Amino acid sequence: MTRSWWGWGNVEDAVTGAEADELVARIGALLPDHDFTPHEPPAVADLDLRAPRVAAPGALAALASDDPEDRAAHTHGKAYRDVVRNLSGDLPHPPDLVLRPRSEQDVVDVLDWAGTAGVAMVPFGGGTSVVGGVEARVDGPVVSLDLGALDKVLEIDRTSRAARVQAGILGPALEDQLRPHGLTLRHFPQSFEFSTLGGWLATRAGGHYATVLTHVDDLVESLRVVTPVGVSESRRLPGSGAGPSPDRMFLGSEGTLGVITESWVRLQDRPRWQSTCTVDFDFFDAAVAATRAVAQSGLHPSNCRLLDPMEAAVNAGSSTTGGLLVLAFESADHPVDAWLDRALELVRDHGGRPGAVRARSPDAGAGGPRGEAPEGADAWRSSFLRMPYQRDAVTRRSLIAETFETACTWDRFAELHAAITSAAYGVLEQLGAPGVVTCRFTHVYPDGPAPYYGVYASGRWGSLLPMWDEVKAGVSEAIAAHGGTITHHHAVGRDHAPWYDRQRPDPFAAALRGAKAALDPRGILNPGVLGL
Amino acid sequence: MTRSWWGWGNVEDAVTGAEADELVARIGALLPDHDFTPHEPPAVADLDLRAPRVAAPGALAALASDDPEDRAAHTHGKAYRDVVRNLSGDLPHPPDLVLRPRSEQDVVDVLDWAGTAGVAMVPFGGGTSVVGGVEARVDGPVVSLDLGALDKVLEIDRTSRAARVQAGILGPALEDQLRPHGLTLRHFPQSFEFSTLGGWLATRAGGHYATVLTHVDDLVESLRVVTPVGVSESRRLPGSGAGPSPDRMFLGSEGTLGVITESWVRLQDRPRWQSTCTVDFDFFDAAVAATRAVAQSGLHPSNCRLLDPMEAAVNAGSSTTGGLLVLAFESADHPVDAWLDRALELVRDHGGRPGAVRARSPDAGAGGPRGEAPEGADAWRSSFLRMPYQRDAVTRRSLIAETFETACTWDRFAELHAAITSAAYGVLEQLGAPGVVTCRFTHVYPDGPAPYYGVYASGRWGSLLPMWDEVKAGVSEAIAAHGGTITHHHAVGRDHAPWYDRQRPDPFAAALRGAKAALDPRGILNPGVLGL
Repeated sequence: MTRSWWGWGNVEDAVTGAEADELVARIGALLPDHDFTPHEPPAVADLDLRAPRVAAPGALAALASDDPEDRAAHTHGKAYRDVVRNLSGDLPHPPDLVLRPRSEQDVVDVLDWAGTAGVAMVPFGGGTSVVGGVEARVDGPVVSLDLGALDKVLEIDRTSRAARVQAGILGPALEDQLRPHGLTLRHFPQSFEFSTLGGWLATRAGGHYATVLTHVDDLVESLRVVTPVGVSESRRLPGSGAGPSPDRMFLGSEGTLGVITESWVRLQDRPRWQSTCTVDFDFFDAAVAATRAVAQSGLHPSNCRLLDPMEAAVNAGSSTTGGLLVLAFESADHPVDAWLDRALELVRDHGGRPGAVRARSPDAGAGGPRGEAPEGADAWRSSFLRMPYQRDAVTRRSLIAETFETACTWDRFAELHAAITSAAYGVLEQLGAPGVVTCRFTHVYPDGPAPYYGVYASGRWGSLLPMWDEVKAGVSEAIAAHGGTITHHHAVGRDHAPWYDRQRPDPFAAALRGAKAALDPRGILNPGVLGL
Repeated sequence: MTRSWWGWGNVEDAVTGAEADELVARIGALLPDHDFTPHEPPAVADLDLRAPRVAAPGALAALASDDPEDRAAHTHGKAYRDVVRNLSGDLPHPPDLVLRPRSEQDVVDVLDWAGTAGVAMVPFGGGTSVVGGVEARVDGPVVSLDLGALDKVLEIDRTSRAARVQAGILGPALEDQLRPHGLTLRHFPQSFEFSTLGGWLATRAGGHYATVLTHVDDLVESLRVVTPVGVSESRRLPGSGAGPSPDRMFLGSEGTLGVITESWVRLQDRPRWQSTCTVDFDFFDAAVAATRAVAQSGLHPSNCRLLDPMEAAVNAGSSTTGGLLVLAFESADHPVDAWLDRALELVRDHGGRPGAVRARSPDAGAGGPRGEAPEGADAWRSSFLRMPYQRDAVTRRSLIAETFETACTWDRFAELHAAITSAAYGVLEQLGAPGVVTCRFTHVYPDGPAPYYGVYASGRWGSLLPMWDEVKAGVSEAIAAHGGTITHHHAVGRDHAPWYDRQRPDPFAAALRGAKAALDPRGILNPGVLGL
């Protein structure tokens, strides 16, 4: 498999042929006047990348690459605006070098050199940032520090269900190394195949569980972090109240305070019982109320994903007037019937119509005794994994196709949701770009949902970047004004900095700058991210 | 009711008469040679407190008290070593004044004055610190900043189940103001009656739930904190991934970074179903294994407290050779039979013998259809609330009686537990102080327990403080050497600083000092706590 330098994932998995035709036909029905002419990505040789301004000294030279495709692949993340810029050959800030440490000591050595030489370091895991988090948008020489060679599970504690894992490991390799022990991290972001544990930790990624363990933060026992002033290693603890949590300062620091090299992570036994059911609603307000009832029930479903009617139509191929709620429970220890049964009572109380239950158990195997697979849930899941590839295919055909997410308390959801969708549609209208805005809840809490939005609209080749940036600014203003967070699990990076700066309390910003000055006195670590 | 200046709680609730006789008789059976002569606390007039070295200026004078009993009551927390020193009249560091702000603006004004005048401020909630957290052990003038007048629930969001609450509110007042709304914070530390929300937040207190929501941290939506450089207010959010969590920096900061004045906290509906069962074991290792199985089952009991045989004997009056596990499930939404039934299967697999189940339900009322109350659990609960009063009574009678707690991963528990008990008994033997060491798990996680220890031994009047300090140093060394945390939910304060300093990664310490310098440039906030 060949990793794409300009788009998502593997070149071999890109959308082509019948899938592309089907996609064009489906979107064409919605946007009949759109120009679907496909545009080819430029050849790397035509990118005319700025020549490297720095060379790795002595022993570090063996870790360095100045190969143009390597540098191009490390220039941007994988946001829509990254793909658009890559397709246009717009790469003004390539890293001067890509450095690939093979050990933690290499990381220490690289930071020592960088501090002395005044070279900025952009830590790079899988490079799937969608917020400009790995982009070398800095003056002066800059290196992309690719941690992909730190890819091992080093130790497993079966008793405590935990493992010591290197930060550069990709999702599939991590699960492959845990599977023989009957264990799993169960952290499955959409980027799972191409993102790393260290990236998840540095960005506070959201994962598999819709409730309780929503962020990777909760799966952390301890961290090892190389900072310019030394290695920080926290103690493996299941819980502690000794001062502010050291790990919580590095979680979400996005490479600005140090380079995460290892973590002890909390694992799960592989689930043996799973039950899934999709619930249809006539009215969206009722669907939201039902979802809130489940979120506040203490039942802790592993999945509790509400798709609004447009999301169901666009991304699951399902028709509904009020929304589809995908509910799932799973356990390695016990049947989950009592849990699902009660959740279905709750949704029925709000007018929900549950479909067939699909159950898996050690006795009955998959598709067990309680009925057939719900079509909506399966279709959505499969679509979920193809979405980034399809995003690339439609971007090449001049569509706007991007997502963003937030979270808010339940009392504010209706107002925030109206403000966001109205802002998005308003900007699309101003731009003369017909399209749709979709919404799903990816995670839910007792005190509020995390809504995730998609914007799919007819763009114009050559103007895609400013068009999207206007949509993004509009919806971000709505989020800032109506009590949401600028990001629930996509991180801040460089792109969210203006709104993050308004959301973050000023004294906390001052404290974070104080911490940054103490750990990274020369300011070499991911300058510009988090406004640091 | 009159608050005791030298000991726990209310003067009127102190142990006297028959309760004292029973206590002496019970301990006398264990320690027949002990001298139980009761020693009286000194009169405040005899304390000879250092004269105040500073006066509150202008408008702040109305908030100030220099009353000797007030100053004496704000000199120490409520640890054993505090009570011993109070009983001995050993109060060398009384605060010069007690200041009681009536509004957040008062807090701002007090900090402004303190910064200008170079007066140290010790934030004081309910004053129940057991780690020297509220002790004015500083050079120069110092004020105890008592937040008790900020005692209101300001706003309730029934939809999101959250409330905006002032930090100085005591536990009972908070629950009283939530009860009419059918809501509860369900945070019930042993200090509940005499400690405040702000104190819980500043110290990362442990509460009611044995699993999932173990610390008050998880009940926080947002914080308002007055710092010397401005007010920090985080956004109310059910979850967020926008940079390192601002709240997590202030949670556990123990008054060193700012004064918490308000918080939006997450609430629960009041539980309608509750089931409790006590399980007896022949062997402690099996009891630990059973507890681990429940902790890793995903059943999320609200109580999962394992008492070792000595704890069961001393504090629950129960006989067991292997330990008693108190299991409870509760819900506002659904019967919890399926949950408890599965947990009891798990403990039976490890040789546990469940007693009768006590169930409460909306239909059946308390002591419902599933049997009688388990004696052990009830006795323990009632004893739990009397313990601090009994601690005072036995301290006056020259006993050593103190607790400490830690947490570790399951793989290390046996070794850590052996090291702690062996260190404690070793020091007691060196001291010629016969006694017992008890252990219970107060909270359990999938990856490890939080064991809580009691030391009850025969001390000698006049030497209690150095005797206890030797025990504490011995067990703290064992914790530091064998992978525990110096505190799971009692905070760091001044007393844990030497071991905290070894546990805390050096770069994190540097970062915290950087944050402190940014927020409190003159170093007026609780100097010495957290080593800051």
